[in-house]
This record gives sequence, structure tokens and C-alpha cells, in this order.
Amino acid sequence: MVRRSGRRPGNQDTKQSILEAARTIFAERGFDKASIRAIAGEAGVDPALVHHYFGTKEKLFLASVNAPVNPAELIPKALAGPREEAGARLVALVLSVWDSPAGGAAVALMRSALSNEWTARLMREFVLTQVLRRAVAELGIDAEEAPVRAALVATQIAGLAVVRYVLKAEPVASADPQRLVAAVGPSVQRYLTEDLPGVF
Amino acid sequence: MVRRSGRRPGNQDTKQSILEAARTIFAERGFDKASIRAIAGEAGVDPALVHHYFGTKEKLFLASVNAPVNPAELIPKALAGPREEAGARLVALVLSVWDSPAGGAAVALMRSALSNEWTARLMREFVLTQVLRRAVAELGIDAEEAPVRAALVATQIAGLAVVRYVLKAEPVASADPQRLVAAVGPSVQRYLTEDLPGVF
Repeated sequence: MVRRSGRRPGNQDTKQSILEAARTIFAERGFDKASIRAIAGEAGVDPALVHHYFGTKEKLFLASVNAPVNPAELIPKALAGPREEAGARLVALVLSVWDSPAGGAAVALMRSALSNEWTARLMREFVLTQVLRRAVAELGIDAEEAPVRAALVATQIAGLAVVRYVLKAEPVASADPQRLVAAVGPSVQRYLTEDLPGVF
Repeated sequence: MVRRSGRRPGNQDTKQSILEAARTIFAERGFDKASIRAIAGEAGVDPALVHHYFGTKEKLFLASVNAPVNPAELIPKALAGPREEAGARLVALVLSVWDSPAGGAAVALMRSALSNEWTARLMREFVLTQVLRRAVAELGIDAEEAPVRAALVATQIAGLAVVRYVLKAEPVASADPQRLVAAVGPSVQRYLTEDLPGVF
């Protein structure tokens, strides 16, 4: 019998056990309080093995929810660069990921976040608190305003994704990405950097 | 044995059969092409009985998806009045419905639209095409622009609902409604009535 790959099936089983343990522990404790040690304990393996297979807690989390891309890498990149076009760049990034072959997995993850309490909790902790809020703070915004601005950005981005990719409502569903960037970018920009009277 | 109400159980069965038939026919044909006649046929009852129990096709549709309110009545009301505050009024309306006791049913319906293809289709046909698009056209906007503007409004409103009520992400989840109106109203206003360079 010829092995089709150098990987031993046992490794796949171990990885699978770790992913399942990760889902359990993340669900119970949330992203912040879940530790690699606890996940390793739940899976009955050494913590070093978890690090070996998955690297950081962030990457293990992304693997456990089948995330097709790493927002922690992409979002700060999109927000870097000229401040007054950050909104347009963020919208363009979101559209480029969701319009790509990775988009199917992104839709699945979004649906899951909208129907499962634990995915919802993790998405808001991870995407919002860990990633978007920090990236927004990098724009040189008052630290006290960053959480509100990040959450407002999330309302517009999540809504664009829901209407275009989940509800598939026309004319947004098949609109040219550039046209959507022109339409939605300024709203995101407003949340990111403009004065918001009545809010602050 | 004492009857607790004047309603005969048979009527409830008939209403239930009609609602089930409505779900089937709406799912197969969409809102526009579904007819009371076809729904009555599917339920094995006279079309007059469907009208008797549910009134219009619109009301039957809302009953079949367990909609807690009638957007066809509420949205045009919110958009009537001073044009330059239509965005704020629409956001205030959405928040007042979702923050009310009816909000639980609204969240359930939203979740359903995000996970079931047929509810998604009906929501985009009903809320977007039948209601929002017509209401936007009433603002005296170029008829060709109304579908795009309505869909852009939908991205912001849907995203606000998703972040506040489904993902329950802070600080949006427990923000004062007035603060959210101040934050999100101008974005909706922009989609409703302002120039959108690069879009039109």
C-alpha cells in the first residue's frame, strides 16, 4: 500500500481533536480568556503540540471557525496609508475578499455568526475588539472614541456583506465593486475619522 | 366541558393550513408571483376564505413569516415629513421597533432571513422592492436612482440591526437610541438624498 502523502493519519486526528477542543473552550470562555493550555488540556495533548500545529491563539481561532483569511493581517494593512481614504480602502478590501474564491467560506462564517451564539460572540470579540478597534486606534483617534467608531464601521461593513452576499439583494448584489466603494466608502470614512456630533 | 373561546379549533386548523400553503407558494414563486388563488389551491380552501382570514397578500405574507410589524405601513410614515431628516427618522423607527417587545420576533425573522434562502428572497423582494424602494421614490428622487439608494439604505439599516441585535456587539448593543440616530442617521440620509459621486 502506498501512502499518498507524508502526513500520518494520526496527525490529522490530533489536529482535529485540537480544533474541536478549541471550539469548546472558545465557546465557553470567549477569545480573550481561552488559553492554549486549556485547549491542549481539553484535547488531551501537550500545549507545545498546539503551538506546533497552529502557531498563535489567533491562528488557532481562525482555523477553528474556518476563517478563509486573517482579518488581523488584512484590516490594519487596509487602514494604513492616507488617512482620508481609509474608509474606501477598507470597503475595497472587504469586497475583494468576499468576491474572491475565499468568499464562499466567508459567507458560511457570516451565516454561522448570525445563527450561533458562540460564533457571534467570537466574531465580535475577535474582529471587533482585537482587530478593528486596534486598527482604528492606529488612525490616531482618541482612544475613548475608537470602540464606538469601530463598532459603527462594523455596522456598515456587516450590512454591506449581508445585503450583497447573504440576502443577495439587487442592485447591490451584482454592483461593480468600484461603485460600491464610491457609495459606501464615505460612510465608513465618516465613522472612522469625521466629527460625529451627538455621538462625541 | 366549557369552551374557553368562541373560536372553533377547526378555524385554527384552516388558518394554519393557509399559512403553511402560503410559505410553500411564497417560497416557490416569490412574493410578486405568488397569488392568493394559488395559496388557496395549495391549502385546499376557497380564495375568499384566505381573504377573510388574512386580508391582503401583503398581510398574509407578513403572517406567514411571523413579522411583528408591517414595514409597508411604518417605513413610508417614517420617510414622510421634512426630507432632510428622513434618514434620522428611519433609523429612529428601526430602533424603536427592535427595542420594543416586538424586537424578539424581529430578531428571529432576521436570523431566518440570514439562514434560509426563501426568507432571504422574500425579505429582499418584500422589504426592499415593495416597501423601501417605493418609499424612497416618494422622496422625489430620480426613479432610476431609487433602487440603488434603497439598497444602500438597506446595507446600513441591516448592518445596524445585525450588530446591535444579533451580534450584540458593544458599545452599539447598549447605546442610547438617540446617539445611534446621531451616528447612523446622516449615513442613511446620504444614501437617501445626497449626491453620490461615482455612483450616479
